[in-house]
Amino acid sequence: MRIAILAHEKFPHRAKTGLGVLRYTDDEVVAVLDRDNAGRRVAEFVPDVQDAPIVESMADIVGRDHGRGQNQDQYRNRDIDALLIGISPIGGAFDESWRADVRTALEAGCDVISGLHYFLGEDEEFAALADEHGCEIRDVREPPAGLSVSEGIADEVSAEVVLTVGTDCSVGKLTTTMELARAAGEAGHDAAVIPTGQTGIMIEGWGNPIDRVVSDFTAGAVEEMILEKGDEHDYLFVEGQGSIVHPAYSGVTAGILHGSMPDRLVLCHAAGTEVIHGYESFDLPPIEAYVERYESFAQPVHETEVVAGALNTAHLESDADARAALDEFATAIDAPATDVVRFGADEILDTVI
Amino acid sequence: MRIAILAHEKFPHRAKTGLGVLRYTDDEVVAVLDRDNAGRRVAEFVPDVQDAPIVESMADIVGRDHGRGQNQDQYRNRDIDALLIGISPIGGAFDESWRADVRTALEAGCDVISGLHYFLGEDEEFAALADEHGCEIRDVREPPAGLSVSEGIADEVSAEVVLTVGTDCSVGKLTTTMELARAAGEAGHDAAVIPTGQTGIMIEGWGNPIDRVVSDFTAGAVEEMILEKGDEHDYLFVEGQGSIVHPAYSGVTAGILHGSMPDRLVLCHAAGTEVIHGYESFDLPPIEAYVERYESFAQPVHETEVVAGALNTAHLESDADARAALDEFATAIDAPATDVVRFGADEILDTVI
Repeated sequence: MRIAILAHEKFPHRAKTGLGVLRYTDDEVVAVLDRDNAGRRVAEFVPDVQDAPIVESMADIVGRDHGRGQNQDQYRNRDIDALLIGISPIGGAFDESWRADVRTALEAGCDVISGLHYFLGEDEEFAALADEHGCEIRDVREPPAGLSVSEGIADEVSAEVVLTVGTDCSVGKLTTTMELARAAGEAGHDAAVIPTGQTGIMIEGWGNPIDRVVSDFTAGAVEEMILEKGDEHDYLFVEGQGSIVHPAYSGVTAGILHGSMPDRLVLCHAAGTEVIHGYESFDLPPIEAYVERYESFAQPVHETEVVAGALNTAHLESDADARAALDEFATAIDAPATDVVRFGADEILDTVI
Repeated sequence: MRIAILAHEKFPHRAKTGLGVLRYTDDEVVAVLDRDNAGRRVAEFVPDVQDAPIVESMADIVGRDHGRGQNQDQYRNRDIDALLIGISPIGGAFDESWRADVRTALEAGCDVISGLHYFLGEDEEFAALADEHGCEIRDVREPPAGLSVSEGIADEVSAEVVLTVGTDCSVGKLTTTMELARAAGEAGHDAAVIPTGQTGIMIEGWGNPIDRVVSDFTAGAVEEMILEKGDEHDYLFVEGQGSIVHPAYSGVTAGILHGSMPDRLVLCHAAGTEVIHGYESFDLPPIEAYVERYESFAQPVHETEVVAGALNTAHLESDADARAALDEFATAIDAPATDVVRFGADEILDTVI
């Protein structure tokens, strides 16, 4: 597939979904839409992901006259297959400033892939346009039917289950999950990812959007995936969500922690972060307290242990500074730690699997 | 309103919703439907709630010929206003053995009130019957539109917020909430209940069914109610759900605990319970550990304290045995405790408000 990623005014660091897709998708990213950075390239901001031009709007990609006359629509359709919404504001609402881009995409016959809580397929204008132009709107945050409550049996699968947990949202749980699974695969193990959020689902092409399921089914929706995959692989790397101390999302975190019954935890953190992102009146507890918090919360359902840490050091310029931050983090959690992007997941793989 | 309560094969102790409604509703309960106990009366099983005859089926109430000829439907309609589903299996599914009763109710022009996860209003047969007979199906577990994520600001209201928390499901959180609010009111305080589950919503006539909302909105759906009512009353008694150690429902509990930002907690327990109800392979942690678990989980978002305990001693015959169990419980939680039904909520009211 050839895709465009919408990330207006948020690229790169507040476009978590877009960046995750750029890093891990097998699809070709034709362009990133960001009206604040039009004319530049992805590689200028993030060197270690797929590069692509940054454009102002969808019209810049599909709207130009390719000089093909009546075949223009057909050309456009081959030119780009889908527009992917690569940002998600708190609450998952749709920003009306994106409407023209979605409209242009659908009119050009592009599918639209979204992980917003606001389902684009239920938007009257978009639904009508998709129908008219024969394209598809995929709301990946729409949970499948048939989910139910957990039975508390995820530990019955043969695979070892590794869950990423975090000090906050947006600290690298998806990235750590993907890098660990890749490293385990490269080391000759049969490892699979259990996607629990929009970005993981977009990358892997399947999964349950846990933060969107009925809250009673939070643990059950994770358990269902573990039971489905757990006897086919040696290791399952479960994408964690939120944080156990988050004022809004702790319920999702708690459900995943109990529902997945993980054998091991990897604690993810962004170096230097001291307050909850978007909830700045809430301080993060000391790093060392998170280990006890996660292990103790999990214990009545399934004993588990924080065996390693993953620290995002992207904003530290020198590798030496990153190493110093890693040392401090590893000491705090009393376990080995790495930056899975900067130094690779191999540094902690042995303790994780 | 005159209502009937469906509680087949589960009355009284596994008909939590029905029993809660019998205890607290202002409506008149015309009959309880329980095919296992037809011919007996509620008072034979539970002496301290509204009494009513127990019948085999809805047909026993609305199906008899009242000898009014063409006015029969009209008579029936006055005879009973609504059938209320008073039981909820794990997972909230609809049991097909109840279908004939619901059908009979709708055909007789009765409304049907349900708190199941399975929405009766979306059942084709029931929807058609309700339409045909001009009656209403109220699925109280269907969350309102417009919910979103918590902002972490429930502590800004002027009311003191008291949350009931539990060692497990079905240990008396609703009952404790209702009794504390009643006792506070009788003591001259302006107290309101914040209903978070089907039974509370049925009794109070409003509320958000937290276990049914989108899991990302768990905390937000509680916060919304606190913000709505919190400046109108001196005390808010929030109905808790589930348990922080529950394999399936801990996410709901966690969301309510963080979203409501309670000033005080009341820990509810059923005397003698040692394993999670319906999940018998999971032991309850020691009672004393719950205090630390709840307080420590809440702390990063809002500091709170377990100030009292509520123990369900219904299965203990003598008051002396109940008092002994209460003493043991109070010692374990290091706070005063009562059985709010047996000995009244007044015994702990002073420490709670």
